[in-house]
Amino acid sequence: METLLLDQTAVDANARMDEVIRAVEDAFAAYERGDAQMPAKSYIDLPEYNGDFRSMPAYLDAGEWDAAGIKWVNVHPDNPEKFDLPTVLGTMIYSDPETARPLAIMDGTELTMQRTGAAAAVATDYLAREDARTLGLVGAGVQSYTQVEAIAAVRDIEEIVVADLDDEAVAAFVEYFDDRFDVHGGSIPEAAACDVLSTVTPSTEPLVSRDDLGEHTHVNAMGADAADKQELDPAILRDARLVIDDHAQTTHSGEISIPYADGVIDDADIDGAVGEIVVGEASGRTPEDGISVFDSTGLAIQDVATAHVVYEHARENDNGESFAFVSQ
Amino acid sequence: METLLLDQTAVDANARMDEVIRAVEDAFAAYERGDAQMPAKSYIDLPEYNGDFRSMPAYLDAGEWDAAGIKWVNVHPDNPEKFDLPTVLGTMIYSDPETARPLAIMDGTELTMQRTGAAAAVATDYLAREDARTLGLVGAGVQSYTQVEAIAAVRDIEEIVVADLDDEAVAAFVEYFDDRFDVHGGSIPEAAACDVLSTVTPSTEPLVSRDDLGEHTHVNAMGADAADKQELDPAILRDARLVIDDHAQTTHSGEISIPYADGVIDDADIDGAVGEIVVGEASGRTPEDGISVFDSTGLAIQDVATAHVVYEHARENDNGESFAFVSQ
Repeated sequence: METLLLDQTAVDANARMDEVIRAVEDAFAAYERGDAQMPAKSYIDLPEYNGDFRSMPAYLDAGEWDAAGIKWVNVHPDNPEKFDLPTVLGTMIYSDPETARPLAIMDGTELTMQRTGAAAAVATDYLAREDARTLGLVGAGVQSYTQVEAIAAVRDIEEIVVADLDDEAVAAFVEYFDDRFDVHGGSIPEAAACDVLSTVTPSTEPLVSRDDLGEHTHVNAMGADAADKQELDPAILRDARLVIDDHAQTTHSGEISIPYADGVIDDADIDGAVGEIVVGEASGRTPEDGISVFDSTGLAIQDVATAHVVYEHARENDNGESFAFVSQ
Repeated sequence: METLLLDQTAVDANARMDEVIRAVEDAFAAYERGDAQMPAKSYIDLPEYNGDFRSMPAYLDAGEWDAAGIKWVNVHPDNPEKFDLPTVLGTMIYSDPETARPLAIMDGTELTMQRTGAAAAVATDYLAREDARTLGLVGAGVQSYTQVEAIAAVRDIEEIVVADLDDEAVAAFVEYFDDRFDVHGGSIPEAAACDVLSTVTPSTEPLVSRDDLGEHTHVNAMGADAADKQELDPAILRDARLVIDDHAQTTHSGEISIPYADGVIDDADIDGAVGEIVVGEASGRTPEDGISVFDSTGLAIQDVATAHVVYEHARENDNGESFAFVSQ
């Protein structure tokens, strides 16, 4: 019984963004329809190492395909400085739901970037203006790259403004995308004035003010993934059409979690889940909509859906290595 | 960043039973002291495939060592007949708690057998008579083998009686152990009359009657791992010194779960957890004790502790293959 091993390069090569976006969209729809199972993330907190582990199991039935698996992932902020390792290291076991065979084990770090980009693209596709041409990024770290790749797959992005305190990160980002876009560094207000804005920082304080946003800016709030993180002025959440990925996760550890806990916003401010829009229970952007916000915490079903795309293409392309954990 | 891949053979070769027993004992102690984290198992039920997935993350600090990881495991009873695959297929990711590096990925099926045997051995060491010489097995399947290896490491077992409806399974078991023990097939009452009895069946109805047991038999009830399973007459649970691995798991899906749900036994019948005995908060067998029962559901900390032993020896022995999921 062979299991396919896929490293970061193989995951990147086989995560075809247009298909990943479609698979993540299918996953949101399956979840909304009740055709997915996603037990709550469970956490192991290790304050002695300033880190934590998270387990993210899921199953989803998208109709034409179904998929199961688990991502075991962590946040260890001291890793880069102390150990020359990434803060986040994920490993994904992708399993056949019918027999539980471990079909593939793949790098979950690259997978996370791909599926996070894809989630922003799904939300952007439904919530940004059709004629969106400018994209702002707050944060030029690893997650910013897949935001561009994914969002450019759903809108004809021409100009990109990237804001980051780290000049080297900005320069690397600009150099990477210079061939394909009119891309330059800028301030947070300059980034926030774009048609689409993605925030991808680990900030624990609001970085983007209400006044920074354009009149119709769609914001993908991607950075907050813990109860102490936020990137947006709560006034933005009150004024925006506010769409979330999952109520339990976003109120626990998403962009909205701090103002929600403080009572600054409540359920009346949340205008539904992205899955409701995907299945047609709610509309996408309407002419009346001003600013919109997608609060993305990252769902296990996104990982499983992305792993499905990666696995299928890796098999086609004969990528990866085989390993037999059991002899049968 | 290399990850060690360990298949079934490598797990078996490096799970030195005496050390696995000690590591599992350390894990029970750490859990009792509050030095372990073990979020509740989360289940994904797939009735359309007559199967389920379970995720079992854990961290434990045993003092001299600590360890973290997750086992992703399933129960698909149709696998053997329909797909020529085992009912249970596990995969374990063993991680460095300090950095979250995936140190090893190993076959979790063999690991489960080893750690389940070890749990029975820890309980047997504290609860069986010192002079126990006879061991009964109800069930001659895969789990029965590690029961023998583990229990023989803590008591001078001379005679083994194995009861199973499947004559071929009995014959294979007898042949396997014939060199080392006086081993023969027998009835359930014959097995149950031994000094130590381990039940390792997937039965959903009691197989062992109260009268079958010897006056001082210690029973390891290993088979029940779901809410509809039981192997022992509830009268046994009422009469015995009843020790569990974990209250939440045993009352949910252990041997005691059905009589507990029916009100046939209650918390007053549960004489504590094996961890309390290991740390010295409760005594082992006393001269006054008659029959005793250990209800084992299998804890994620057992898997992590066993993976620790396997990983350390596999490194020493240069076993397994290396794979770099991320290039860093």
